[in-house]
Amino acid sequence: MNQRPRSKSPTSSFFTRSSPYVKTLTIFKMGRKAFLKPTLLFTILFLLALFAFLSINTSRYDSEPTHFEIQEKGLKIDGGLGVKKVRVYMYDLPRRFTYGVIESYAKARNGDLLKLKYPGNQHPAEWYIFDDLNRVGSERVGSPVVRVMDPDEADLFYVPFFSSLSLVVNPIRPAGTVGPSVVYSDEVMQEGLVEWLEDQVYWKRNNGWDHVFICQDPNALFKVVDRVKNGVLLVSDFGRLGRDQASLVKDVILPYSHRINTFKGDVGVENRKSLLFFMGNRYRKEGGKIRDMLFKLLENERDIVIKHGAQSRESRRMATQGMHTSRFCLHPAGDTPSACRLFDAIVSLCVPVIISDYIELPFEDVIDYRKIAVFVDTKSAVEPGYLLKLLRSINAGRILKYQEEMKKVKHYFEYEDPDGTVNEIWRQVSSKLPLIKLMINRDKRLVKRELTEPDCACMCSNQTGIHTT
Amino acid sequence: MNQRPRSKSPTSSFFTRSSPYVKTLTIFKMGRKAFLKPTLLFTILFLLALFAFLSINTSRYDSEPTHFEIQEKGLKIDGGLGVKKVRVYMYDLPRRFTYGVIESYAKARNGDLLKLKYPGNQHPAEWYIFDDLNRVGSERVGSPVVRVMDPDEADLFYVPFFSSLSLVVNPIRPAGTVGPSVVYSDEVMQEGLVEWLEDQVYWKRNNGWDHVFICQDPNALFKVVDRVKNGVLLVSDFGRLGRDQASLVKDVILPYSHRINTFKGDVGVENRKSLLFFMGNRYRKEGGKIRDMLFKLLENERDIVIKHGAQSRESRRMATQGMHTSRFCLHPAGDTPSACRLFDAIVSLCVPVIISDYIELPFEDVIDYRKIAVFVDTKSAVEPGYLLKLLRSINAGRILKYQEEMKKVKHYFEYEDPDGTVNEIWRQVSSKLPLIKLMINRDKRLVKRELTEPDCACMCSNQTGIHTT
Repeated sequence: MNQRPRSKSPTSSFFTRSSPYVKTLTIFKMGRKAFLKPTLLFTILFLLALFAFLSINTSRYDSEPTHFEIQEKGLKIDGGLGVKKVRVYMYDLPRRFTYGVIESYAKARNGDLLKLKYPGNQHPAEWYIFDDLNRVGSERVGSPVVRVMDPDEADLFYVPFFSSLSLVVNPIRPAGTVGPSVVYSDEVMQEGLVEWLEDQVYWKRNNGWDHVFICQDPNALFKVVDRVKNGVLLVSDFGRLGRDQASLVKDVILPYSHRINTFKGDVGVENRKSLLFFMGNRYRKEGGKIRDMLFKLLENERDIVIKHGAQSRESRRMATQGMHTSRFCLHPAGDTPSACRLFDAIVSLCVPVIISDYIELPFEDVIDYRKIAVFVDTKSAVEPGYLLKLLRSINAGRILKYQEEMKKVKHYFEYEDPDGTVNEIWRQVSSKLPLIKLMINRDKRLVKRELTEPDCACMCSNQTGIHTT
Repeated sequence: MNQRPRSKSPTSSFFTRSSPYVKTLTIFKMGRKAFLKPTLLFTILFLLALFAFLSINTSRYDSEPTHFEIQEKGLKIDGGLGVKKVRVYMYDLPRRFTYGVIESYAKARNGDLLKLKYPGNQHPAEWYIFDDLNRVGSERVGSPVVRVMDPDEADLFYVPFFSSLSLVVNPIRPAGTVGPSVVYSDEVMQEGLVEWLEDQVYWKRNNGWDHVFICQDPNALFKVVDRVKNGVLLVSDFGRLGRDQASLVKDVILPYSHRINTFKGDVGVENRKSLLFFMGNRYRKEGGKIRDMLFKLLENERDIVIKHGAQSRESRRMATQGMHTSRFCLHPAGDTPSACRLFDAIVSLCVPVIISDYIELPFEDVIDYRKIAVFVDTKSAVEPGYLLKLLRSINAGRILKYQEEMKKVKHYFEYEDPDGTVNEIWRQVSSKLPLIKLMINRDKRLVKRELTEPDCACMCSNQTGIHTT
C-alpha cells in the first residue's frame, strides 16, 4: 500500500496543493459531480481517506508537543515562553512521618487502623498534596508541576511530613482528667524529621533553599522551624512565625479547608434574611480579643446572628444554615489572624467582613479580595454603630456583585477539585523558583563579609508603616 | 450528507469505539478482507474519509494553541502550565525623553542630528529594550513578553526614558575650563519625567508597582528614585541605592555592555601567555580603593599585565589584546561594586577574578558564576602572595572548563543578539509579575495599622551576616 498519493494520479496535484482545512468543502463539491464513474469516485475516496490519515498522524506528531504531552513528559516549551514544568521530587520519608501519623491518630481514638483514612479537619492540605503527587501523571490534570522519581532531575524537593495532623494526634483531654500514658510525641517527630533530613545529600547540597515544607496549622513544625526556614513553607498565616522565618516572598499562604458545605444555589439576597452571621469562640487571645467586643456590640441587634460555639457536628450544621441565609459573614481575628471561617463564608456566597488587621490571604496575586470581601480595621469596627451603618449601606446590587466574584474564585478553595487548591499551591510555589535558584547560586559564591545587618532582599509595601483603606 | 456515521450502519459501533491512533492499522487489516462486497467497501471508505476529516478539524481547533500561535497572539496556555506571555505597554513618552536625549547628546558634540544613532557606551540597555519593543511581533523571536498597544490589556508598563544617556549629555570638561552655557539638565529631565508620569492614570492606579524603569548607570534617575522605587528598576548594581529603594526581589541586575570585541577563537591556554590582566583606573573611591593596593602587589610580577588607563579607543584596543591573551582577568570593585570589565572578560574567555565583596550579578538564577569566575574576598586578596598562589594553582584543565562554561553563557551578555540580553531581561522582569500582582492587590485592601517597622517581605541569605566561601 502506498504511503503517499501516486504522483501520476489525476488528483495528485490537487492533494499536494490543498490544505486539510478546505477538505470538507471539497468533498461537498465533489458530491455534486454525478458524472464521475464509480471506479474513479472509489479511487478518490480511497486516496482522500489515506491522505487524511497521514494528515492526522503528522498533525499529531510533527507539531509542538500537545498539552497532554507536556503534562506527561514535563517537556520544555523553549524559545518563546522559555517555560518548562517545574519538576518536584517527593521524599520517600520513613512511614512514621506519613501513614504512620494517620495510624497513631486513629489508634489514639480507637479508630479503624486498616482504613488509613486521613481524618477530616481544617488543615488537610498535607494530605491532598501527598495524594496528588502519588497519582499517575495523566490523572494530575492541569498541574503546573511534574513529579520526578530521580532527585537529580528535580527543581524542588517536597517533604511530605503530616505536620498538622502530628500536632493533634493526642486527643485534648479536659483539664484535670488523666488518660492512658502518652506514647506519641509531636516534638520527637519534628526533631526526628530534621535529623533524617540533615542526613540527605540533597538537603545539604543547596542549604535547603529548594525544599518545600508543609506546616498549615499555625503551630505545626514550631519546634524546628528555625532549622527548615530556608525552605518554602506552606502556611496559613505568619501569626506565629518571625520575620526571619517566613515571608510573602519566600513562602505560600494556603487556604484552610472549608468545613461547611458549599452553597449550591445561585447568587441572590432574597433568601438571606440575616444581615450578618457569626458563630465561633467568643474568647480568644491577642488580636482575637476583638471578638468579645464585637459580641457586646452586636448581640442584641435584630437582623444579626452572633453565637458562641465550638467545633462540633451540631455547630457545623447550624453554621451552614446561618452562612447560607446571611448576606454578610463576620471574620474577626482569632488566636492567629486567619481562620477557616473565611473560606466557609466564600463557599456559602456570604460576603466576608474581615476584621483582622494583620491577615495574609491565599493566592493574592490572582485574587483581588476587595471584590469578594469587606475589610474593616479593628479600631473602626469597635466604634458603636460603625459596622452596622457600613453594612446596611451596601445595597443588594453590590452584594450580588460580591457573590458573583465569589463564585468565580471559589474553585481556588476546593481541595477536592482535581484542578483546584492543590494545583494553585504548586503554581504559587513554582513562581518562586527563579528567586530560589538565584539564592542558591548567590549564597555559594558569596565571600566573607562583615555585615551590620542581615543580608536580605525585600519588597516593602509602605515605608511609613501606616496604611489607610 | 450526514455529519456522523449512521447509527444503523454495520460499522458504526466500530467507529465510535476506535481512536484515530489505530486507524492506520485498521485499514491494513481491512485490505485483507477480500470477501467484502464493493458497495460495503465503498461505504466504509467513504465513512472513514468523513471521520478522518472531522478528526483533523477537531485536532486542529480543539487542542492547545501551538507554540507559533502563542508567540503571535500572546495566547494563554491555561490549566496545565498556567502560563501566558506577559503583556507590556510601552509609554509613548514625549519625544524629549527618548530621541530628544540622543539629539541633545549629538548637539553637545556637534554630531549628526539627522542620524539619531544611539552612541556606543557601556549602558545601552535602554536603547536595546526600546528598539526591541518597537519591532513588529514576528521579529521579536523568543521574547517572553508581548507588546500591547492598549494599556488596559497590559500587565506591565515600560517607561523608556534614556536615563543613562541623559546623565552624560553634557560632555565632561577638564577642571577649570569653561564651555558654552549649559542648556541641558539631566535633573530637570528626571523631574519632568516623574511629573509627566504622575499625571498618568495607569501610574496612579497601582501606585507604580507594575511600572518598569531603566537606570542602568548607577547614577541614572538618582534625583527621583524615591518617587519611582515601587516599580521594577533595571540597574547595574545596588551600590548607590538604599535597601528601601532596590532589591534582588523587586529589581533586575543588568549586565553592562561589553566594550571590547568577542574572542572568536576556541577555548585553550596556548595563546594565553599572561597569567593575569587588568587595565583601568588605579584610583577609585570606596570599595575601589583596593585597586591601588592590588597595583602595588602585582605590578612587578613577570606574567602579569596590570596597567592604569582610562576609557579611549586606544586603551580599548590594548585591553582587547590583553584580555584575549591572558588566562585570568582581574575584576576589582570600582566606585560601585560592578563594572563592564567583567563582561569584557567573559566574552574574551578570560576567567574573571572577582574581588568585589558586595557585587550583585546579572541573571544569577540561570548562571552559576562559580563555574565561570574565581571569587576572592578583599581581605584575602591583599595578603601578599595569596592571589598569585591561588591563580597559579589552577591548572589548564580547570581553565578550559571555565572557558567552556563562559562560551555557554556568553549569549546572555550579547545585547546585539536578537535572542540575547534583552529577552533575558524580560524573562527576569516577567518572573516578578506574581509578586507584583500580589503587592498591588494586597496594598489596596490593607487597613490602617500602626507598625513599628516597615511592612516588608524579605528573603535573607544568612542571619549571622558573615559568609565564607
